[in-house]
Amino acid sequence: MSEQAMRAEKLDAADELRGKRDEFVLDDVIYLDGNSLGALPAVVPGRVEDVVRRQWGELRIRSWEESGWWTAPERIGDRIAPLIGAAPGQVVVGDSTSVNVFKALVGAVRLAGQGRDEIVVDATTFPTDGYIAESAARLTGCTLRPVAPADVPAALGDRTAAVLLNHVDYRTGRLHDLPALTAAVHRAGAYVVWDLCHSAGALPVGLDEHGVDLAVGCTYKFLNGGPGSPAYLYVRRELQDRFDSPLPGWNSHAEPFGMRTDYEPASGALRGRVGTPDILSMLALEAALEVWDGVSVAAVRAKSLALTDFFLECVAEYVPEGRVECVTPVAHEERGSQIALRCADAGEVMKRLIEQGVVGDFRAPDVLRFGFTPLYVGFADVERAARVLARTLA
Amino acid sequence: MSEQAMRAEKLDAADELRGKRDEFVLDDVIYLDGNSLGALPAVVPGRVEDVVRRQWGELRIRSWEESGWWTAPERIGDRIAPLIGAAPGQVVVGDSTSVNVFKALVGAVRLAGQGRDEIVVDATTFPTDGYIAESAARLTGCTLRPVAPADVPAALGDRTAAVLLNHVDYRTGRLHDLPALTAAVHRAGAYVVWDLCHSAGALPVGLDEHGVDLAVGCTYKFLNGGPGSPAYLYVRRELQDRFDSPLPGWNSHAEPFGMRTDYEPASGALRGRVGTPDILSMLALEAALEVWDGVSVAAVRAKSLALTDFFLECVAEYVPEGRVECVTPVAHEERGSQIALRCADAGEVMKRLIEQGVVGDFRAPDVLRFGFTPLYVGFADVERAARVLARTLA
Repeated sequence: MSEQAMRAEKLDAADELRGKRDEFVLDDVIYLDGNSLGALPAVVPGRVEDVVRRQWGELRIRSWEESGWWTAPERIGDRIAPLIGAAPGQVVVGDSTSVNVFKALVGAVRLAGQGRDEIVVDATTFPTDGYIAESAARLTGCTLRPVAPADVPAALGDRTAAVLLNHVDYRTGRLHDLPALTAAVHRAGAYVVWDLCHSAGALPVGLDEHGVDLAVGCTYKFLNGGPGSPAYLYVRRELQDRFDSPLPGWNSHAEPFGMRTDYEPASGALRGRVGTPDILSMLALEAALEVWDGVSVAAVRAKSLALTDFFLECVAEYVPEGRVECVTPVAHEERGSQIALRCADAGEVMKRLIEQGVVGDFRAPDVLRFGFTPLYVGFADVERAARVLARTLA
Repeated sequence: MSEQAMRAEKLDAADELRGKRDEFVLDDVIYLDGNSLGALPAVVPGRVEDVVRRQWGELRIRSWEESGWWTAPERIGDRIAPLIGAAPGQVVVGDSTSVNVFKALVGAVRLAGQGRDEIVVDATTFPTDGYIAESAARLTGCTLRPVAPADVPAALGDRTAAVLLNHVDYRTGRLHDLPALTAAVHRAGAYVVWDLCHSAGALPVGLDEHGVDLAVGCTYKFLNGGPGSPAYLYVRRELQDRFDSPLPGWNSHAEPFGMRTDYEPASGALRGRVGTPDILSMLALEAALEVWDGVSVAAVRAKSLALTDFFLECVAEYVPEGRVECVTPVAHEERGSQIALRCADAGEVMKRLIEQGVVGDFRAPDVLRFGFTPLYVGFADVERAARVLARTLA
């Protein structure tokens, strides 16, 4: 047994989150793609079966009340809230991340009001955020200005209405400084929208603490909600009364069953709802969130950093010099829960890794991306992944 | 046995769709609320279990390709297409009806182009369509004009950009004249968006035949897709190249995994996609659509009219004169697949019907609504429902 393998054994033995792995359906594969699709929590299949067979099949329409379907978006929002540092009543679940970016960004521009007609968007953002920002700008008469996150403070001005930023860069794994950037946006009198897709469930976000205005995120990565599980929208409590959604569906009406022709928005987080929620996906997510019972985000973050540190060490030791270049920052305060390695033949390398039971993913044009989900990835997995990577690259 | 009960027996014996009932999970309840939430098709639970346990749990991320997750929105769209009279390649599944109304209506206004700045909306529409139309008007600089469907032709002019209409009125069950209204909109040089929520799966729609421009609909009523199952968007083939979605998420990009910062829309129906599709709900819907194998919409329509005719007859015979007033048109060409009865104490009456195993629903302020799903409702059910209603009203 190599020195690193022995270290891995000790680290696993001391890992306080170790037992969580048993709450997931896993096999011999080393699954480092939980930042794309989280693994299946063991509680989910039984719950989904109950939703389908009993709630839908037997109770049918009665389940909207009796099985709590109607209130699921805000109830599940409240379950996600503590994971992103939000007090209850500010998060609502539903729709895709893209649709929520649209609600949040148009909402932010409207909050900013007259005289502010510029949307600043992270130039390195996940593409969909940029496309939606362009549409939001077009529909609200704003100019769209793509800016690298580091240059955002200098780009802000008295015409800035809203700023859309990613907490963690999907490609490089770089963690941006949410408190400082939020403060800079506020100093400029603008509103900020954070995309938490790659941070929620992996590290502390602190939405309330840092005075974030709006935030969105998906639930199928570190929150393990299942393929395409619904996204969420956070609207800071003090802004909710002024939040003016561009998608005012009947589910966000103050009296949804009043069937009134005039729209009167509901109070609170559920103003972010739109149409009928997709119950199967939503209740699978609710079950999946149970794995977070008793888990502190601080512990998850500590393990995440330990895992990624250890992976970098093993890669440095095992992989031939110069074969890969790490594009994820080494500094902890700048690192999410993934490691991205640049590698000329990344597409081919990832294919071969997957064949050998190490699953990460490839992001064009040349990035090997490995996600580390602290709830089910262990240190021995990390060591073995580095070993297989080294062998593949040799 | 009463005369009507004997007639029901004969009608059931002669019903060519009779065997379809066995493909659903049903019990002794007379379920006349399939126009709100369709009953569970028996094939669904097993399929969902496979999606959760094997596709997500075992294959995980590989399922996006290997289990056909990525192409589900257009594949399932093609399965719905024949039910609404559309050739393949024009329907895409995803998001809620409200979100699809937004895409379609903003898209229609953009198709109409400069100089046309009025959106006409069915004044009797389901509320969400009206709220979303108001938002679409506001964001595109249009005026919103609510008009009763019968008055739409007279309201059209050279400033009309788009018209949003319901095929069947959710409250009264009135079927509007889709061919004539579509032709009138086209004569005015405008574009029409039809909401098919209460017609798809219950009667022939004929989108292609009648040259409809855009259409949306839910899948959880007569299509039995499950609670909050994803909606669909139809964009007529000749318009697809010019369809300019206000929600251009990465799933509608010509090269979604190219991760390009510039948006280039995909060709065809999938231009209507937005974000990552909710796979659990979507594949439950796909399974649910299998009950349509070998079923002709014409046969469904014939049975639907026979069921509603028979219900009206039984109600006329059993229910004390003047106790209810039918607000659904008697003429076949103006009737959807529901019967709405006005009744002063409708809320209370529906509660008591449900206690007695006859499930319809109450629509404020005074409507008892009964939906007739020809795939699983039989004539004996109808006769018994009318009998229980009469007893309750006596």
